[in-house]
Parts: sequence; structure tokens; C-alpha cells
Amino acid sequence: MTKSTFVNGVDRQKLFGTIEAIKANASTANFQFRLFNQWVSGGENRSRVDDYRGADEEMRHSRPFFLINDQPNVLMSGDIAPNPVEYLLHALAGCLTTALVYHAAAQGIEVGSVTTRFEGDLDLRGFLGLSHEVRRGCKAIRAVFTIVAECSEAKKRELIEIAQKHSPVFDMVTNGVPVTCTLAQSRMQTAA
Amino acid sequence: MTKSTFVNGVDRQKLFGTIEAIKANASTANFQFRLFNQWVSGGENRSRVDDYRGADEEMRHSRPFFLINDQPNVLMSGDIAPNPVEYLLHALAGCLTTALVYHAAAQGIEVGSVTTRFEGDLDLRGFLGLSHEVRRGCKAIRAVFTIVAECSEAKKRELIEIAQKHSPVFDMVTNGVPVTCTLAQSRMQTAA
Repeated sequence: MTKSTFVNGVDRQKLFGTIEAIKANASTANFQFRLFNQWVSGGENRSRVDDYRGADEEMRHSRPFFLINDQPNVLMSGDIAPNPVEYLLHALAGCLTTALVYHAAAQGIEVGSVTTRFEGDLDLRGFLGLSHEVRRGCKAIRAVFTIVAECSEAKKRELIEIAQKHSPVFDMVTNGVPVTCTLAQSRMQTAA
Repeated sequence: MTKSTFVNGVDRQKLFGTIEAIKANASTANFQFRLFNQWVSGGENRSRVDDYRGADEEMRHSRPFFLINDQPNVLMSGDIAPNPVEYLLHALAGCLTTALVYHAAAQGIEVGSVTTRFEGDLDLRGFLGLSHEVRRGCKAIRAVFTIVAECSEAKKRELIEIAQKHSPVFDMVTNGVPVTCTLAQSRMQTAA
């Protein structure tokens, strides 16, 4: 390799090793991410992220992570944390950025900085069930990237294309995923 | 009203007032959520959530909120925070729960507790660009709800249906949203 093994903070040796391992055994590519959420009151609820499945093994994060959803006062809650739509934008921003930076590293392109600005337009009539013509989610999301890197504007645009082409969250948010919601088997439950 | 104004921590008077205000002037329903994200290194990047537009006004959260994305070691980063796919599950869990609890409050149904368990299956070959047959995002997401409330199992299932029907994030994740990604106008940028 002509580049140092770390580019953009990504260990290229490990990245190429992962790619070889998956080429040799596709089941290593199967991941399952999990989350446990508990309602608190009004628009407040909390999630715990801990175990996941990856590379054919049960795994655990370095520690459990706790996340809080809330709604602003104008949406009738205490405004102690971002709301779910803002978390969706955070997921989207993070995944596109990671896809951009990892694929740039694979190509040996050193990136100095990436900053993004996201906006999503939401008509509350959907959530409230006040209109059948209005969708419940955002009708559009816009992202503007500012990239500092030793490459041309054209190459920066290409990196943004590569990010969109490979980001799992971008795929889910733009193309949709089947989500199945069920009620747990009935038995006596104690309130937490 | 036969119920106290607060049900499930939701101020029903304020909720019904909001509905009346929107019926009188639909533009009050227009919200815009925003996020600023900055790459740190590898799979780590950080978001700031602060201002938004709501009810025809520029608004600001009670304080700015900061969120961190990272990736576990097996995905070549430092594992200091959840990853974007886990944040997507958090957004989905939070939005479905809030839709369930608010609509239950509107109907006067008191909910004791709501807990959910989410799982999303991801094949990493999509992210790595190793297969054209594999999608980049999760192929499926499953959610299991445990609800404690003074109502029948059938009513609990109905609440889960109502949540899916009204949740903005559920709509976006299942049906997809157009996301436009552009490069900021070129000018000298300094690395952060």
C-alpha cells in the first residue's frame, strides 16, 4: 500500500481484511442491531442500546448507551431532548458521513473535514390525523455538505454520490423498509 | 371533559387547542426540523440540534442538544456511541410510542406503560459495495410492543395500528422520503 494504514481515522488494513473475510464467507456480513425503548410520560421515552449481532457472533458495545426522545413545549412535552424526527436526521447525517469517509479512505483520499446541514419539512396535520392529503412524515429532506479535502469539486460531488449509494440509513429513508409491529404475547405485566 | 386535562402526561386541553388552531389556519401545522453535523474521525461524528420552525414561528429548543454517532470496533471505529442504524431504531421507537400515547390521550385512554423491542437485520455487503443483490439498509425491522393499560388486548392492538397510521418517522421509514444531497457553494473553507 502506498498510503499509511490509517486514512481518515479508518484502519484500511482492517477494512480490506473485513472485505476479504466477507468475500470468503458471506454470512460474516450479517448484522442485527437492537434497541429497547421505554415510555416515560407525554413525549418522553428512553432507549437502551447494548447487544447486537455482527460477524456471525453475539456482540456487546463497549458499554450500554442510553438515548432520550422528547418533544418541544409547542408539541406538548418537556423539551428535555431532541424529538424522533431530529434523531432521524442525526441517523441520516451520521450514516452518509461515515459512508463518505470510509469509501474515501478505501480510495486513499484524505478528508480534512465534513460538515452537513439537514432540514426536514413536516406538516403536523398528518400526525394529528387532520388531513388525508398530507403525509405524516417529512415531504422532503435537504442536506448540504461542506467538504474540505485535497481533491477537486467534481471529486467531492462524486464522494457525495458514493455516500448516497452505500449508506444503509440513506437507503432505508429514501426507499423504505418493511417494519412489522406486533403486541407481545399476553401475560401479566407489571408497570415499570 | 370527563377526564382530567392531563392524560398520559399529555395536556389534552392544549392538544385540542392545537387541533382547533390548525383547523382555523393550516399553515400553523408547518414545521421544519434542522440539524448540523460534523465529522470527527473514522465512524465518529457529532450533531447539534438547536433551532427549528414550528407553528409559523422560528423557535429554539430549551437548550442546544448534542448527539454522537460512532461505530463498534468490528466496524472499524471507537465504539463510544450508538451507530446511525441504532439511532434510526431509536427515532422509530420514539415516534411510534409518542403517536400511541398522544392518540390514546386524545381518546381518554390511560396508559400505564409502553415498552418496545426493536431489531433490524443488515447485510454489510450493501455498505461495502460487494453485492448488487443485497440492499444497503436493513431488509426488515421488527418491533414488539408490551403495553400495560386498562383496556382489552384488542384495544391495545388498535393503539399499535393508530401509532403506525400517525407516526411521522414510521411513515418515512416504511414509505421513503425524497432526500436531496448537495455540495455547498465553493469558497475557501477552513478545516474545523
